Amino acid sequence: MNRPHRPIPESAVETISQFLRAHALGTGSDGVVVGLSGGVDSALVARLARDALGAARVLGLLLPDTTMPPALVAETEEYGRSLGIETRTIPIDPMEDAFRGALPEVRDRVALGNTTARIRMTVLYAVARERRRLVVGTGNKSELLLGYFTKYGDGGADLLPIGDLYKGEVWGLAAELGIPPSIRERAPTAGFWEGQTDEGELGATYAEIDSVLRGLEELRREPEIVAETGLPPELVRGILGRVEMYRHKRRLPPVAKLGLRTVGIDWRD
Amino acid sequence: MNRPHRPIPESAVETISQFLRAHALGTGSDGVVVGLSGGVDSALVARLARDALGAARVLGLLLPDTTMPPALVAETEEYGRSLGIETRTIPIDPMEDAFRGALPEVRDRVALGNTTARIRMTVLYAVARERRRLVVGTGNKSELLLGYFTKYGDGGADLLPIGDLYKGEVWGLAAELGIPPSIRERAPTAGFWEGQTDEGELGATYAEIDSVLRGLEELRREPEIVAETGLPPELVRGILGRVEMYRHKRRLPPVAKLGLRTVGIDWRD
Repeated sequence: MNRPHRPIPESAVETISQFLRAHALGTGSDGVVVGLSGGVDSALVARLARDALGAARVLGLLLPDTTMPPALVAETEEYGRSLGIETRTIPIDPMEDAFRGALPEVRDRVALGNTTARIRMTVLYAVARERRRLVVGTGNKSELLLGYFTKYGDGGADLLPIGDLYKGEVWGLAAELGIPPSIRERAPTAGFWEGQTDEGELGATYAEIDSVLRGLEELRREPEIVAETGLPPELVRGILGRVEMYRHKRRLPPVAKLGLRTVGIDWRD
Repeated sequence: MNRPHRPIPESAVETISQFLRAHALGTGSDGVVVGLSGGVDSALVARLARDALGAARVLGLLLPDTTMPPALVAETEEYGRSLGIETRTIPIDPMEDAFRGALPEVRDRVALGNTTARIRMTVLYAVARERRRLVVGTGNKSELLLGYFTKYGDGGADLLPIGDLYKGEVWGLAAELGIPPSIRERAPTAGFWEGQTDEGELGATYAEIDSVLRGLEELRREPEIVAETGLPPELVRGILGRVEMYRHKRRLPPVAKLGLRTVGIDWRD
């Protein structure tokens, strides 16, 4: 399948490299840990981190459960080896089983998927602390705006190097950097259940989603976005509704303001 | 032990009640879930939530591991019953054991404690989703400013109703509301290891810490704070250093800025 590419902001790679070096070197940190899922976002982040920090300062963690096909685990490990970075595979089924055993009534597949994402975050942070590393997140701009991530799960990271690249730009940059087609062409999925795909669940392709989000970035209103994109009004409304509904995932938890200066509101941080 | 009380901002209880009602009712939520640790912060949050939302809309979860004495579990369950709220006790040892089994090299007690805090967050969110509730956090202003919490662990919540009350104010309000002395007088602890106390680990009492943080809130500089509090300069410097060092815990993860408007920086959210 041909993924829609978008031109990348000029000097994006240099900006991301400087960002990674500024945050991940010095001040008690000696590199990054990144979770490798087999998807293009984490493949791109690992590659950018390797180029910016050097292979010795990037640790790729594969955190599969039984729903991740062994061939995909092997391919992802091989990709890590091709970057020259250290990889480590830690199956998370025992943790998933322990949560399921303690919470038998939680059977909703989204709730189970969120738990899995939080288990992965917990492992990434435990290993990162042991190695004096930061946890680098793989969220892209489309996901962040749609709220298509688990709060304190894959959303829980120290740095978001590709958080300002739309999904189409991620595909474009990944192609430019020569990331293998098998990774770039895989259908994006959160992996919460078999057959789940981002585009199936969101009800729109990323090309459609990105065009709506770009309209929003340029401060267009709904009717203008409909006119400019030529997309069905319900589809545009649905995407804009998600951006609004999951705003809380892009904010610090609200604090009841009582004092002169309040953390997360007007404390001089 | 007599805990230093601080006068509470006038109408604090009313402000917190309105805050809880505005966020936790409607828009798909029907109340809150709060983790009850046996400490004064969570006891106060549960009480304020009960008063603001009604007992039927507050679920108290006890998430003990084997290091929590059974008498403390019983006392905490009894406190929940005294509020008239539903409580549930879910031991988290199986999840702790699963993480320890998968990560045998992680033996640092802070890393283990952080993992425990993240397990608790994960359980709170799984139950909250099942019940259509929000997760209410119990962090206070002293903890938030010191960074004395686990990022994406106890720091992971939807709302922070007492996040603008210093620890001394928490003690004061808890006394005013008649929360039992056994809870109010217990030494604050993260419970990461036996004998751990906040004040022991931080190297200062909360009365000292709060006086330094109040100076900072009023934009005093280090020498003025030393002069006004009469505390040893090293102690003041240590507290101010913590506020600085853990600033990242009070911020959204940084994004490498590439586009016109960027999530967490200048996106119009």
